Formats: sequence, C-alpha cells, structure tokens
Amino acid sequence: MLDESILEINHSMVKRGICNFIKRKTSSHEGVVLGLSGGLDSSLCAKLCVEALGAEKVCGLVMPSEFTSEADISDAKEVASQLGIRMKEISIQPILDSFLSQMPESLFATKLAKGNIQARIRMTLLYKEANSLNRLVVGTGNRSELMQGYFTKYGDGGCDLLPIGNLYKTQVRSLAKYVGVSEEILAKSPSAGLWPGQKDEDELGVSYKKLDLLLYAHLEKNMSAAKAASAAGVNRGIAEKVMDNIKNSQHKREPVPMAEIS
Amino acid sequence: MLDESILEINHSMVKRGICNFIKRKTSSHEGVVLGLSGGLDSSLCAKLCVEALGAEKVCGLVMPSEFTSEADISDAKEVASQLGIRMKEISIQPILDSFLSQMPESLFATKLAKGNIQARIRMTLLYKEANSLNRLVVGTGNRSELMQGYFTKYGDGGCDLLPIGNLYKTQVRSLAKYVGVSEEILAKSPSAGLWPGQKDEDELGVSYKKLDLLLYAHLEKNMSAAKAASAAGVNRGIAEKVMDNIKNSQHKREPVPMAEIS
Repeated sequence: MLDESILEINHSMVKRGICNFIKRKTSSHEGVVLGLSGGLDSSLCAKLCVEALGAEKVCGLVMPSEFTSEADISDAKEVASQLGIRMKEISIQPILDSFLSQMPESLFATKLAKGNIQARIRMTLLYKEANSLNRLVVGTGNRSELMQGYFTKYGDGGCDLLPIGNLYKTQVRSLAKYVGVSEEILAKSPSAGLWPGQKDEDELGVSYKKLDLLLYAHLEKNMSAAKAASAAGVNRGIAEKVMDNIKNSQHKREPVPMAEIS
Repeated sequence: MLDESILEINHSMVKRGICNFIKRKTSSHEGVVLGLSGGLDSSLCAKLCVEALGAEKVCGLVMPSEFTSEADISDAKEVASQLGIRMKEISIQPILDSFLSQMPESLFATKLAKGNIQARIRMTLLYKEANSLNRLVVGTGNRSELMQGYFTKYGDGGCDLLPIGNLYKTQVRSLAKYVGVSEEILAKSPSAGLWPGQKDEDELGVSYKKLDLLLYAHLEKNMSAAKAASAAGVNRGIAEKVMDNIKNSQHKREPVPMAEIS
C-alpha cells in the first residue's frame, strides 16, 4: 500500500515555483484573466496570480449559467473581493440559449453536450477579455483532471498557461489551505458545475484520494493497473478504468496530429 | 534564388498518404465533421475525407455570419452537393449577437476580436455536431497559415486532425487542382472570411508564393531571415516579419505550458 504522505509537497517551494512560472510566462503581457467558479482550483489560481503579479494585473470573470448555484456565484465574488482584483460577472445563459436555439435537435442535447458548450462559451469570453487587455488566459486545471481527460477540449482546456497543471487534486487542496483559501471553499465537494448537484467523484467513479494514489503509482512509479490497484487499495476494475481514461484522453493534451508529407 | 519548383509534390502519393492518415485517425469513430467555407482548404479537405471514408461518413457545416458573402455560401453548398455529403447550414449571427450583447463595450470590439469570436463559435458548433454523431472534427489549416499563426487559437485551430496541416498553401492549391476542386474555388483570393473583402495576402503582407518560399527556406533548409529573403527574392524586412510570426505563434501549436513541480 502506498501511503498518502507520498503526495505531500513542500508548500513554500511549490508556491514560489508556481509564482515564478506565472511571472515568466506573462512577462510580455499586461497580466492575466481567469474564470472564477467559487471552487478550489480557480480560487487557488487567483490567489497565486495575485501573489505573482499583484492584484491590479489579475482579472476574474464570474460566468454563471442556470446550472450555477447562488452559493458558488457568491463564493466566486468573495474571492475576487478578498483579493482586491477586478471582477466582471457575465451570465452565459443568453449565449447558451442562442446556441441551443440554432440546433433544432437541442431538446435532445445530452447533459454532457450542454456542459461542453458552456465550457467553450466561457473560454471564448475569457479570450475576448484577455485580447482586449493584452492579457493571457490562466487555466485552472490540475493534474488529476488533466490526466483523466476530465475537462472540455478547447473549453476549460483552452488557455495559455496552467499554473497548477502539475499538482494532483489532493496537492491543490493542501496548497490552497496553505495560502489561505477560505474554509467554505475548502469544504465543498469538487464539482465541474455543469449541472445541479454534479460531483466530480461520482462521475470519475473514485475518490480523489484514491485517484491520486492510482495516478501517482502509474505515472510517477510506472506501475501497471494491477500493481497500482493494490498499491492504492482499490479494485482492479477501477484502476483499469483510470488507465483507460489516461490513454483515451491523450489527444486532449497533445498538438493536433497532421498527415506526414513524405 | 529558390525556384518555385521546390514546392512541387507527387500528387498521387500525397493524396494517398493523407487519405490513409484520415482513415487511421478516425478508425474508432463514425466519421468526420468539417466546416465548409467555400474556400480552397475546406473544399480540398472535404474531397479528401470523402475519398478516404466515403460520402456517408462526412458531414459539412456551412456557418455564415453577416460577414459571409452569398457567393461563398453558395460555393460551400455546391461542394457538399457535388460530393454527396450531408450538409447543415447554421447561421452564427444570432450567437455572435448574443456574445456581443453580453459585452457592454462591444461597440468598440475590434475586427480581430470579432473574428476570433466567430471562429470559436464555429468550433463549438462543429464539436456539438461531432459529439452527437460520435465523429471527429477535421481542421482545414495548412502549413503556411499554421506556421504564421494565422488562425484563432481554440477557434479554427481547435480540431482533432489536420489532413493538410503539412502542406504549404501553394501545395494545397496544386493538390486541389489535381483532385478536381472547381475552377470557381481555385480562382478565389484566399480569405479567412472574417470581414467583407478581407484577403489573407493583404494581412500577411506578402503573397503566398513568396511566403511559402520563405517558410520553406527557413523551416526545411534552416536558412536565416537574411538568406531566406534573398533565396525567395523579397526584402529582408518581410522575411524578418515572417520569422517573427513563426516565433510569436509557437504557443498556438504547442501543449499549454505548466509550472514544473520539483
């Protein structure tokens, strides 16, 4: 059995490394824009951007749809106000409606398809804002999500830099605690917020604690699904699903393939 | 001086290679979806997809806005009808309007910002269609555009495979002629269609003939800007601009950078 302590990080060192990365990557721009959902990842990213660049160079967009809870909206605004950054609230509902009304079959649109459209609308709004201010778009994805393909290609996956893209979700939580993200936000169940009551762990079929151990065993220690399963203390079926997700989502993390011309 | 003949390709071999690539990349999907603009690149891609997969596995979306000419719409539909593929026309204007109305400052939106929003709306519609049919999105970018960054990140750049991504624009034209793309389409001035009268070559500041020679000299023959300029017969300023565009658009062709966690 792997012990959870293997995922422990040196908080001050990791924080410094991420802040330096943000500074370096944005050095020829006026700052950054990011979406604030009221969740852990975006709250941590906003905090790290402010530490790296100063509040005046960070802009947060709150982009609710009808699927967004009032609590999340108010938490997102609270993050912006506590950090002293510029905040803009833009409802994506009218835009989502206009997409759906252009699709006669939209009554049958799946939850997932609607979720993807929402994510892409948010990306488009973030870039509109970033373009007009000569800023970059900060993505808030973490290593657990990214490796499982648990994001929308060209939606929330569409950004210019990923400050916490190499941190597993359990590490994100621990760093968030360290930098002072609020107790309310730390206490929430992780959710992509794509429909009411949606929880990441229900969809992923495994807790983040177990998922992170599986990913660590496989990605960092090269263990097979069978070995990773016993190292993480889960059944083999779960481990195999996790490995499949890594493989099947590879296209989301790589440049678009092109035909070779000999 | 480099001779234009260096860009000549073996048509039948290149065509076969691209068709094999399309088949291989889509083998676990039901087919492909692509946007048809009535221009050279998308018309060639549609033709190659049909040769690779058969007409029933190819779906073309015609997605005009108020900036799209009637001639382009009718050429795009003509391509679909000649190839016998399913075609859907979806106006993006209501969606574009809903984006602009959510942005109070939209009156001041630049042509470029509006162009980017249009490209991202089209990407979102293509994926909606592809998702619902278990298909992949074919991108129609060519090597000249891709290397100059002359595309919208996560807009027309957002796709699953790039059949002609390694062909320079002059090679695209020559292959299009070979596979029988219509004279009307071959005769058009290349345009991203982002506003009325827009021409690629005006924006790029150089003809595709010269651009392709410069790119070839630099990318395939490792020549400096100065050497490439004299090889292509253009002044050095133009060559330097082209090299700058390659460098400045690198982020559009690479995976999103992440902070390293030591």
